[in-house]
This record gives sequence, structure tokens and C-alpha cells, in this order.
Amino acid sequence: MTHPPQRALADIRIRVQRDLTDYLALQTHYLGEIGSELVPVAEAMNSFLLDGGKRLRPLFAYCGYLAAGGVESEAVIKAVSSLELLQACALIHDDLMDGSDTRRNKPSIHRHFEAMHNDEDLTGSPTSYGSSAAILLGDLALVWSDQMFHTSGISSQALLRSLAIHDEMRIELMAGQFLDIHEQALGSSSVARSLKIARYKSGKYTIERPLHFGASLAIESPQKLTAFMDIYSEFGLPLGEAFQLRDDLLGVFGDPSTTGKPAGDDLREGKRTVLMAMTHDRASQAQESALAKYFGDPDLTNEGVEILQTIITETGAREHMEELIEKLTLTALDALNRDEIEPSAHALLNELAAIAIRRSV
Amino acid sequence: MTHPPQRALADIRIRVQRDLTDYLALQTHYLGEIGSELVPVAEAMNSFLLDGGKRLRPLFAYCGYLAAGGVESEAVIKAVSSLELLQACALIHDDLMDGSDTRRNKPSIHRHFEAMHNDEDLTGSPTSYGSSAAILLGDLALVWSDQMFHTSGISSQALLRSLAIHDEMRIELMAGQFLDIHEQALGSSSVARSLKIARYKSGKYTIERPLHFGASLAIESPQKLTAFMDIYSEFGLPLGEAFQLRDDLLGVFGDPSTTGKPAGDDLREGKRTVLMAMTHDRASQAQESALAKYFGDPDLTNEGVEILQTIITETGAREHMEELIEKLTLTALDALNRDEIEPSAHALLNELAAIAIRRSV
Repeated sequence: MTHPPQRALADIRIRVQRDLTDYLALQTHYLGEIGSELVPVAEAMNSFLLDGGKRLRPLFAYCGYLAAGGVESEAVIKAVSSLELLQACALIHDDLMDGSDTRRNKPSIHRHFEAMHNDEDLTGSPTSYGSSAAILLGDLALVWSDQMFHTSGISSQALLRSLAIHDEMRIELMAGQFLDIHEQALGSSSVARSLKIARYKSGKYTIERPLHFGASLAIESPQKLTAFMDIYSEFGLPLGEAFQLRDDLLGVFGDPSTTGKPAGDDLREGKRTVLMAMTHDRASQAQESALAKYFGDPDLTNEGVEILQTIITETGAREHMEELIEKLTLTALDALNRDEIEPSAHALLNELAAIAIRRSV
Repeated sequence: MTHPPQRALADIRIRVQRDLTDYLALQTHYLGEIGSELVPVAEAMNSFLLDGGKRLRPLFAYCGYLAAGGVESEAVIKAVSSLELLQACALIHDDLMDGSDTRRNKPSIHRHFEAMHNDEDLTGSPTSYGSSAAILLGDLALVWSDQMFHTSGISSQALLRSLAIHDEMRIELMAGQFLDIHEQALGSSSVARSLKIARYKSGKYTIERPLHFGASLAIESPQKLTAFMDIYSEFGLPLGEAFQLRDDLLGVFGDPSTTGKPAGDDLREGKRTVLMAMTHDRASQAQESALAKYFGDPDLTNEGVEILQTIITETGAREHMEELIEKLTLTALDALNRDEIEPSAHALLNELAAIAIRRSV
């Protein structure tokens, strides 16, 4: 039996999918008019964007809108759907920077265009062509996201109110991404630094800011909006960190059929996550030697992956992460017990929290 | 003796520089608050953006605003200055895609961060670090450009009017960039295709759309705005093509101290420009063999550069390009002889046209 908030979220997800489909159909036509060479660009974006994803950011934004007193609105659905195009930019550029071959069990965008270069026997380097196409497709997704938001049909007042939060969210995302690549380049790991990256890359960008964005679409009074943003920060920041910690765990222990990435990819890549920083902090000398040997080895075998998984579990880092996720989630949910939150939307935010930390799907 | 329109343009350029400096100072502080690791990011952008550039796009946008009846406004100066940050995104990503080592006689952004990785003895690949930093810095410039525009202090009505043109300009830019990398990957060259790329990458993005953007900031009536946009298209599109053709010529025959790039870089890169398409169309069999041998050779010597320069000149392609630039410019200037154009701003647009096609600086 479907639980009511789950059904409501599924309904929002369907409307988001519809709006993304419609918007991309228009853009595909637009690009095709400029030149047939651009049709593969539009098709790659269609396939990338419409074949998967939990739509977390639109869901948080729309539920944040409803919980702040917003009334059901197709224009607002379109405005929040645009966040998926921003996320597409982040993922396409992220995969290129990480050198990831796959995304959701399909080739990543740079690999897709690299393969196209090979198939069509074009001149020059297939790798460079793939990289260039991924850089431009990410840029295009960022601009499309803006256009979809601006043309959503929300009121001029709502649009003007939400621009500042929208801009700040995107600056924080890029700052968080840079902190992340810088952390990977440092020779050391630190739980404090990893938590800060988690806060910027996920806490703020995935949850807190989409909620703020939703609130700004609903609330006219600046004072009331500020008060609501504070509540959403109390809810969204710890939940966002819990979300990122779960992501760290899935990157090491997750089932490839669910994560869409080969098992152990984060370990091969040597990704400096909070989980790995905690493991280093707790490792014995022997465990530290094994970490130095296997962690970050691009040719790590499945056996090597298992050795690292065992170390991470044996140091207690895995269990500690689970405890931290539990604690952060309780702190987050506690912040929702406020009279200001629209009662009918309370259950939606609760359910979304469960989805974010993967207690539900 | 300084000519009055030159003095007026120099004055606008100073105000653009001031606004970019102030905006970046705020952003540098903002990023520093997030983390000291981000200070080099802000510094790289400061150095990239404030040390050079003719500010063509802000100048066209502001003169387009004045010529459409807009009154002098510091808020509009700030709004049009934001176009330099959009251009920074395009250049940073362009240099990375082209593998260019220098920009304005300094290391390109990816090389700058690659060198920083080496200097600070960070772990991992310096090249990957440089690429990742350039991708993110370009993304950040794109978002900053939006924020600078949105917070410029122009009226809500002007902001709402200009969003659509601003979005379309950026989509056209990315489409033009993709057409360009696709053209490089094709085994053939075509004057028609090269002209289309010139139209999207430069005609529309550098001149027509900034003029439209300026007009939208000045004109309230939709009918009057549409009429003005038509005039600006008649002026901006041919002028933009002339601008791109001049750029092609400078890429082959330009003085490195003026272009900021080593002589012959476009030839080593095998850049498929209108100039090269015309050369191919006119080449004898012997010349075609020499082109096949030298053009696109990354290790091309200065002698090889001279051989190619001679061929391009001898086919008549160079002279034909000069004639085309002349013709396009006359067509453009002719479009300005309209009563609608504010007489006091007429001379500014004339002078800007001369700068764009490098008859002046």
C-alpha cells in the first residue's frame, strides 16, 4: 500500500519529469534550427536528464514552497524543475574532473562524445573532443537551468525575490566543488575539512538552498521569509550532511545496481571523504600501511576493494558514520516541529528526509 | 589629440573596470570567509579579468543603451560590466578546450593552476588539477556574471525585460562554441559553415546581443524595443562577422605583442576559420599539399608559419578577407543612419565599430 506522502512526492516527481521533457523538446528544436550538428548535443542532454535521478532538489524546493504556505502551482513546479539542469551541469563537469566512465550505468557525457568521435571517424583526439563537449554541455545546462527558471511563469515578484538565493546557491556549489578538488590534491586528510566540503557540496546545495529557494517563491514578507529560512537551515544543514555521509558510505559499500557506479570506484579514485578521514584517524599502524598501499590505486582489484572495506569497518569508522547520520537526522527532524510549518506539508518533508538518507526510495 | 567619442569610450571603460574591481573585491572576501583555500581562486580571477581586455561587450551594451535613449546610469554600467565575467567563462573554458598555454601574454588559467600544483607539491596529476580548476573557475565566472547583473541596481522592470535576451545570448554562445569544436573535428572545411560559426560565436554574442541587451535596459515599450532590436541586428550581425574575420587574420598575421598569443598558434592548432576555408577553396594542388603538410602540425616551426602565411596571401584569401571586412563594415554602418538612433550616441557606435574591426584601439 502506498503511503500518502510517498504518493504526493511521486506525483510531484511526475510533474517535474513532464516539465523537463517539455523544456528539452523545445530546446532540441531550437538547437536543430541553428544546425543539425547540434542535435546530438540536445539528444545527449535528453538521455542524461530524463533517464534517472531522484529529483531531490526540485522535491525539496517544492515541499519547501508548500510548507511555507505556497499553494499548488504548475509555474512553481517548472521553476523548481530547473534545478535538475543545474545539477546536470554539476554532474557532467564532476564526471569529467573525476575521470568517471559511467553515470547511472551509462557512459558519462565525455565518454559518450568520445565514443561518437570514434564511431564517426572524426579527426583529432577523441578524448579532447569528449572533454570539450562535456565542458560545453555542462555550461549549456547551467544556462538552460536559468532560462527554464526565468520562463517558468511564476510572478515577477516571486522571480525577483528568489534571484538572490538562486545565485548564492550556485556560488556555494562551485566553491564546494573547488574545496573538494583541492582536498583531493592535499597529501593529508582531515575530518573537519571533509565535513566542511560536505556542508557546501551537499548540505547547502542539495537541501538547505533548495528549501530557501522554495520559501522565497512562497513568502512575500521579508521578515517572514528570513524567519522561515532560519528554520529551513536548522532542518536542511544537518540533513544535508547526513545525506553526504550516506553518499560516502554508498561509494564504498553500495550495490552498483543501485548506485549506478562500479563498486569501489571511490576507493580507486582515492576520494577523500569524511568516511576515509575517520578511517585514517582510527587506523592502527598496520591498517594505515594497507590504506597507503591500496587506497587511490586506479588498478585496485575486487579483492583490494574488499580489504579496504574490511579495514573501514574494523576501525569502527563505518559504525560511527551510521551513528552520526542518525544523530544529524534527529536534529534535522526536530527542527520541523514548529507551528510555522504548514501541517499538510510536514509529512512530505519528513518523508523526503527519509529518502535523502536512504531509509526509503 | 583625443577625439571626443574616444574619450567617452575611455570613460565608460574606466567605470567598467571600477565596477569589476569592486565586485571581485567583495567576492574575494566572500570566498575567503568560506575558506582560505579559495583565496587563490579569487586571485586568479582578479588577475585574469582586471589586467586586460578591450571591454567590447560592455561597451556595445552601454552604447546600445545610450543610443536607444537611455540616460547615463551607474546601475546600467554595472549591469553591462557583468558581460566581462561571462566572457571570462568563455575564454577560460576555450583555452582549456584548445590547450592554449597563454592568454594576454600570461599563463592560461589551467596552466596557472597546474603550475601552482607543482609549486606547492600537491598530490595527484598537476594537469588534472589545472583542468579541474579551469572548469570550476569558468563555471564560477558564469554564475558571478549573473549575480553581478542581478544586483546591479537597475530597476525591476529593466531587469525583467532583459532576462530573456540575456539568456538567449548565452545559449547562442554555447551553441556557437559547440559548432566550433565540431567543425575542428570534421575532416573538411567549408566557408559557409565557418561563416555560421563566426555569426554565432562573434556576430551575435559579441555585438548584436550586447546591443539588444542594452536596448532592453533602455526601452519600456515592447513594440519600440522590437523595432530597435531589428536596427541593432542590421548593424551588429555584419559588424560581428567582420570582427571575427579580423580575428582570423590576426590569428595568422597578428603581432604577438598585440594579440597576446604566440605567432602562428592558430596554424599549429589547425583552427578551421573562414580564412583557412577560403584558402583551401583557392589553393592550387601544390599549395594544397603544403597545407596538408604544415597546417595543424603542433610542432610547426617559425619557417613553417611563414610558408603558410605566404600561401594564404598568394591564394588571394587574405585580400578577399580584407575586402569582405570592408564590405560588411559598410553594410553595418549604413544601418545606423536612422532617425531612431540617439544622435549623441551615433558617433560612439561608429567609433566602437572601428575598434571592433581594429582600425582603431
